[in-house]
Amino acid sequence: MLEEKGAENQVVEGRNAVLEAFRCGRPIDRLYVLDGCQDGPVRSILREAKKHDTIVSFVTKERLTQLSETGKHQGVVAFAAAYEYAQVEDMLELAKKKGEDPFLILLDNIEDPHNLGAIIRTANLAGAHGVIIPKRRAASLTAVVARTSAGALNYTPVAKVTNLVRTIEELKKKGLWFICADMGGDVMYRLDMKGPIGLVIGNEGEGVGRLVKEACDMTASIPMKGEIGSLNASVASGILAYEIVRQRMQK
Amino acid sequence: MLEEKGAENQVVEGRNAVLEAFRCGRPIDRLYVLDGCQDGPVRSILREAKKHDTIVSFVTKERLTQLSETGKHQGVVAFAAAYEYAQVEDMLELAKKKGEDPFLILLDNIEDPHNLGAIIRTANLAGAHGVIIPKRRAASLTAVVARTSAGALNYTPVAKVTNLVRTIEELKKKGLWFICADMGGDVMYRLDMKGPIGLVIGNEGEGVGRLVKEACDMTASIPMKGEIGSLNASVASGILAYEIVRQRMQK
Repeated sequence: MLEEKGAENQVVEGRNAVLEAFRCGRPIDRLYVLDGCQDGPVRSILREAKKHDTIVSFVTKERLTQLSETGKHQGVVAFAAAYEYAQVEDMLELAKKKGEDPFLILLDNIEDPHNLGAIIRTANLAGAHGVIIPKRRAASLTAVVARTSAGALNYTPVAKVTNLVRTIEELKKKGLWFICADMGGDVMYRLDMKGPIGLVIGNEGEGVGRLVKEACDMTASIPMKGEIGSLNASVASGILAYEIVRQRMQK
Repeated sequence: MLEEKGAENQVVEGRNAVLEAFRCGRPIDRLYVLDGCQDGPVRSILREAKKHDTIVSFVTKERLTQLSETGKHQGVVAFAAAYEYAQVEDMLELAKKKGEDPFLILLDNIEDPHNLGAIIRTANLAGAHGVIIPKRRAASLTAVVARTSAGALNYTPVAKVTNLVRTIEELKKKGLWFICADMGGDVMYRLDMKGPIGLVIGNEGEGVGRLVKEACDMTASIPMKGEIGSLNASVASGILAYEIVRQRMQK
């Protein structure tokens, strides 16, 4: 039990996440399935497991709940080798290979793993080349993140850096512009966000930190028409990322 | 104490009544349980409370009797907030009062209360005049929804209707156009979404139902550039709602 949750393994749970992990070729060490579970999605997962020569154990609900980290296993729990963090250079390479201007998303201390997962999911669909998170005081790539990313973690590289400001300074030298999401910023529709770009999203409660904000070239705001204070962090990231998509499509 | 019994709260007491209130999705703000009470029915109530993120206080018999209105509390007293559902007409009135074209968001069976809360939060900030949900097979206004709406539930009216298709047909007669979010639709940036509008968002897994989709005037898609299947429902709602905001700001 303890070894299974150790450093070398990582729990993938929920039907879509497990299926996606198999399909993208992630090495699954072991698959646990709720005994008696025989519906379509579970049969698809079992087919994939057979194809990949994965050891399958049929277990009771109690055992599965023990193995689960989030409690939301939907009848399947897989143990995979740990997600490898990418390097920022890999992201620039990926952009180059696709013949696109780099588009990176930097998260200044997102704390909620559901938000982190949803942002990686959005990053994948908006065509961002990677997500950069800081090493300290932020959610990292846990099972909850993998599940809420709906498989995106298998495709979109995520890098962990020691100091966001230093990373921004280095990327600026490589031609990237940095846009900081900030409620006091210029309305995003009026900014030119077409070139090589890094979009910086702040912490759920406090927004982007002062030093990180000062390192950015521009601040962008989402127009707010209502009575309450702020959007959910993953919704705000989606709206800003897709304004970049829209502007890039107009080029 | 006295405020707790005020107009905004409602007392539910007795085991069956409290359990029933939880099960039918009534928003319970706070639950008081007789300290030391550990039998089956009370444990069921505590499980429901946990599931619904309700604050629980264990109190003395004297305190519970104070809180009770009838004296027949059987060890449990709950305080329910009375979120009142609005009428669709109220939303049209609100738009008229603000001198704006109506902008409504219709949810075809959103199941996750976190998504529902986040969408109401977005609706408020995007300046939508209301959110319409169906009576059956959908999340309703629970405490979790209230919490994830970050206060928006106090400002943005939410109506519950028996039949979404009928509501769409009636609103069409009043001049509204309906846009259905659909992955196979036209790219949203190319559609004219400036007039009186209803944005229809589908269920997390299945999208918008066939009959509802057929009742709409247009289908709009968010361009997808990545490898995975779909965006999170509340993120997708935010992106579409803000495309409407952008187009309205250009008028």
